[in-house]
Amino acid sequence: VSDPRVLGIDLGGTKIAVCTFTPDGRRLDRRQFQTLRGPPEGNLARIVELGRELLAGMAPLAIGVSGGGPLDPRRGVIISIPNLPGWEEVPIAERLRDAFGAPVGIENDANACAIAEHRLGAGRGSKDMVFLTLSTGIGGGLILDGKIYRGHRFLAGEAGHQVIVPGGNPCGCGNRGCLEAYASGTAIARMLSERNEGIATAKELVDRARSGDPRARRSLEDIARFLAMGIANLVYILDPERIILGTIAVAAGDLLLAPLRCEVDRLLWPAFRRDLKILPAGLGLELGDYAAFAVAPM
Amino acid sequence: VSDPRVLGIDLGGTKIAVCTFTPDGRRLDRRQFQTLRGPPEGNLARIVELGRELLAGMAPLAIGVSGGGPLDPRRGVIISIPNLPGWEEVPIAERLRDAFGAPVGIENDANACAIAEHRLGAGRGSKDMVFLTLSTGIGGGLILDGKIYRGHRFLAGEAGHQVIVPGGNPCGCGNRGCLEAYASGTAIARMLSERNEGIATAKELVDRARSGDPRARRSLEDIARFLAMGIANLVYILDPERIILGTIAVAAGDLLLAPLRCEVDRLLWPAFRRDLKILPAGLGLELGDYAAFAVAPM
Repeated sequence: VSDPRVLGIDLGGTKIAVCTFTPDGRRLDRRQFQTLRGPPEGNLARIVELGRELLAGMAPLAIGVSGGGPLDPRRGVIISIPNLPGWEEVPIAERLRDAFGAPVGIENDANACAIAEHRLGAGRGSKDMVFLTLSTGIGGGLILDGKIYRGHRFLAGEAGHQVIVPGGNPCGCGNRGCLEAYASGTAIARMLSERNEGIATAKELVDRARSGDPRARRSLEDIARFLAMGIANLVYILDPERIILGTIAVAAGDLLLAPLRCEVDRLLWPAFRRDLKILPAGLGLELGDYAAFAVAPM
Repeated sequence: VSDPRVLGIDLGGTKIAVCTFTPDGRRLDRRQFQTLRGPPEGNLARIVELGRELLAGMAPLAIGVSGGGPLDPRRGVIISIPNLPGWEEVPIAERLRDAFGAPVGIENDANACAIAEHRLGAGRGSKDMVFLTLSTGIGGGLILDGKIYRGHRFLAGEAGHQVIVPGGNPCGCGNRGCLEAYASGTAIARMLSERNEGIATAKELVDRARSGDPRARRSLEDIARFLAMGIANLVYILDPERIILGTIAVAAGDLLLAPLRCEVDRLLWPAFRRDLKILPAGLGLELGDYAAFAVAPM
């Protein structure tokens, strides 16, 4: 009755998920709630409440937190969460350690996804891999020489903000021409609205392409072309073995990945193409939950 | 009379330098010769001859080879040297080990320069740094989490071939719009020839700018603008503490680096700018010699 459990918390500006896992990474239970506005206390109290409910009184073996914003994994502090004023310098690791009596690991969500894909998903067995979220925005996580690479300010992997078109589309970050301004969910929705073909979101686009609509397929090919520019740059810089793509790539599969692979091949020198694999996230649309699990210190 | 010596060999398609060093990295002697065309044997014999002469019969403590082309540092094999047909799969580590009876380390020149700058130059004390050669071409070497990052195929760091202007200037690599096609010595010479201001080379440009010529200064600012685009992309991806630049940046100093730093700052989010230093190579124009020393296994 008292098998050990790991608690995983996926903490975003829109929703917060709390899950329990077996120590080898099988997800057991899941709760989710809309992130509460205001100071962090309300959300922290709700996380603790749901965690205790799922654990039925047991202490967890370890706790992992995947946070949707900049944070300091060494100190266990969330620096901020986009669109969530009031979250500033929140010592979440300490708070959860006090509440549950277990060690806590925290990591930003793109890094946590990279770690999860490396340990449990499409990155297993690779030493050098790049993970890109393809969601509302484009974040990145780098596994280099077999472990997460965080950078000097824990900001490494912002590959969505490399400029692929100088002076191009305005990006939410304030710059122009970022990869994120061409191949994220937000950018795709804007492109679709300009094309005025009666498709509003990346999800609808994928559904229409899957049903054979040639215009939808062409739109996916256009997105693949921009995405390939960013990926080829990453390959020249990092020479990874695998590129693993989340959310939109998981939904679209080869409708996006087939033209993407062609285009990346066209941009790369032959030596860089050897063994290079571009894959959808192996943990699929549940990657966010597993990302939190994967950063629990065990 | 028999203080231990380290042998450093800087092996390029144009010239080959052979130097001796004290184990703590003081350069003692230097010989250089024009790379001989044809199969590798002639060059290898000359390297051994000059090395023996410099060592005066002593066995070296260790040997470092910095090679101007793709190579396999694990096997100690040079895969090729650009513009030097006949050099294919040359087991140089084995050949030198047999000739001198000492352990041999080999590394491509951009990586070797990064290692040398990290150990002895402007990178000392940093954990995450990017080195860029700014020479005929633009190569890169990445020190991440305190050690050289080579990538899956030992090709990491080709930051000169990220595309900064899609469809832009043709690059020697066959692609268009690479950073190298805008900010390398070759690209600068082409730009100068188009501007027809009576300046032919990057070196002349720097001399003219130093003497106050406003057009030469403007040309350096234009180069800085392109270089900044490539560097900002690298910072978003790798979040390094330092960016260290060779050759042309060493010659130009703040005439290039001052506008470069301004422009990089303009392109980066404030969080990435904290502590970021953009510096000329601390080992200056002798970096190539020290690069060979720095990869000797000790």
